Amino acid sequence: MSELRYNIISLQWVIIATERAKRPKDFIKEKKDQKPLPEYKDDCPFCPGNEAQSPTETLRIGDDKAWKVRVVPNKFGALSPEQKRGRTVLGMRTEMNGFGRHEVIIEHPLHNAFIALMNDTDAENIIRAYKSRYVSICAEEGIEDIVIFKNHGPSAGTSLEHPHSQLVATPIVPPQIRQRVERAAGFFDLTGNCIFCKTLEDELKDKQRVIVETANFVSFIPYAALSPFHIWIFPRRHTPSFSEINEEEISDLAINLKQTLGRLYYGLDDPDFNYSIRSMPVNENGKLYYHWYISIIPRLSQPAGFELGSGMFINAALPEVGAQFLREIKV
Amino acid sequence: MSELRYNIISLQWVIIATERAKRPKDFIKEKKDQKPLPEYKDDCPFCPGNEAQSPTETLRIGDDKAWKVRVVPNKFGALSPEQKRGRTVLGMRTEMNGFGRHEVIIEHPLHNAFIALMNDTDAENIIRAYKSRYVSICAEEGIEDIVIFKNHGPSAGTSLEHPHSQLVATPIVPPQIRQRVERAAGFFDLTGNCIFCKTLEDELKDKQRVIVETANFVSFIPYAALSPFHIWIFPRRHTPSFSEINEEEISDLAINLKQTLGRLYYGLDDPDFNYSIRSMPVNENGKLYYHWYISIIPRLSQPAGFELGSGMFINAALPEVGAQFLREIKV
Repeated sequence: MSELRYNIISLQWVIIATERAKRPKDFIKEKKDQKPLPEYKDDCPFCPGNEAQSPTETLRIGDDKAWKVRVVPNKFGALSPEQKRGRTVLGMRTEMNGFGRHEVIIEHPLHNAFIALMNDTDAENIIRAYKSRYVSICAEEGIEDIVIFKNHGPSAGTSLEHPHSQLVATPIVPPQIRQRVERAAGFFDLTGNCIFCKTLEDELKDKQRVIVETANFVSFIPYAALSPFHIWIFPRRHTPSFSEINEEEISDLAINLKQTLGRLYYGLDDPDFNYSIRSMPVNENGKLYYHWYISIIPRLSQPAGFELGSGMFINAALPEVGAQFLREIKV
Repeated sequence: MSELRYNIISLQWVIIATERAKRPKDFIKEKKDQKPLPEYKDDCPFCPGNEAQSPTETLRIGDDKAWKVRVVPNKFGALSPEQKRGRTVLGMRTEMNGFGRHEVIIEHPLHNAFIALMNDTDAENIIRAYKSRYVSICAEEGIEDIVIFKNHGPSAGTSLEHPHSQLVATPIVPPQIRQRVERAAGFFDLTGNCIFCKTLEDELKDKQRVIVETANFVSFIPYAALSPFHIWIFPRRHTPSFSEINEEEISDLAINLKQTLGRLYYGLDDPDFNYSIRSMPVNENGKLYYHWYISIIPRLSQPAGFELGSGMFINAALPEVGAQFLREIKV
């Protein structure tokens, strides 16, 4: 008996296909010829000593010679601050120059570091770097949205092994983000509540899908998760923009992220995954109704023609079973 | 110099990343250990002689002993007509039973057949089977939308080699399809035109992105294609629902589809791809503003954290260059 579930935040229906349901361990992907990474690689542009291979850094945490985190422009950036911002409309066709920013956050000097396994301070520094660049770029003329994300592993789109995240600052609000914001505003207008606070309250009451609770953050598999082990991390404090995260929350997020990603790492044998921070567009204020969060998507299933043709998803993993499995993993 | 382009039909911004631009041939993926398929496989449930392994067929074209196309329920269907239709709302959570249909269209008796390489009549029969099932299921109580799609190759989500398409009939209108319909209605309200007819007119005038023109259909790479060699096939005749395709159009679509897919096959070394038919929801009539079409997505790039975190896409292939490349391929 399969069922359809509605994701009230992303306005998506998902088919939870219990006829095809797999046990959590069945999602582990065989890794072909993958050797453990070394701590250092001569020819890695992000390893210490090769700093000159990257464009001039926009942020460094730590000393010149013993940096902790570095942020540099992406050498083959999809967008660039050198371009002029501007729209051209030609009948049915609207285009803009590729103005914006595309940066790489080098998370750690070690080539084989991984958030889940690093010490708390190192993990905090990554989040501090995210915040610092986020806040700086918010103040730049012409930027309308900032997406911070991480691609971990080849099937998640990584091309460089050295642990890094990325930041793309766009000259427009991505339409899907606009849709989420409008949806949250609509829910607030109807109910007087933040849809994210209500969802978190509901998940904490139900308990079945919660993975890790820390002082300031909760990670859980959404009720209508689009794909196996799709995870959301919500801050408990209602704040629309990631730029508002404070030092106490940074320390706590480092712990929650390490614990959550650690459960994926040990439970599902270091699966490839993406995560991204979903925040309010930078020139807007949705303080009553919007609430930033992190979305983690392990790459354990493949969207196919149905997903591409309808925007709906078929998920062969029961969220409740997946969350219980991850809760029970020892980190 | 990269640029952003706006897809006026799907309301999506895409970054055309010319800094990372690749030549068409660079998109060819190495195929590891892939042997040519045999014409027949003993243990294939879809090969002739093994018909008893599938659930009772819902359609057959051709004779009992020499069938051309067979349609059968998916043995591990995501939705089923045996379930009762019904919604349950529990606070923030809305769910429905998995009522609907999930069928497999077995395209040809030969295990190694492929639309681009088969004769015209065999290709027409596949489209006839699509139409026949589409029209029948439209008349069923409780079905609100029908998505017909094909997954070709492992990275497009195929698990069975034997050439087949699929059909999923849902008890709700997928939200992304609702969004497309509303967008088309909005454009019509503003301009008095069908957004699809206007796009087709624009593409035919510009010529740069057109691939194959036949009597009744045009294939082209959209101006704001989300991914490399993303192709749309539009019927020239303004009809909202795929159910309205007539015999003349079926014959012509077979030719256009063969020619278009053939160019991918020869030009890009048989890439994995998905296609889907995007049609009006079944209980609605948008005869002034909606227009069905086919979307083909070769699986040549990998959406990563930016795409998953923003809904925007980065495309490293210029649509104009891709279309010219495909136009020049000899089929």
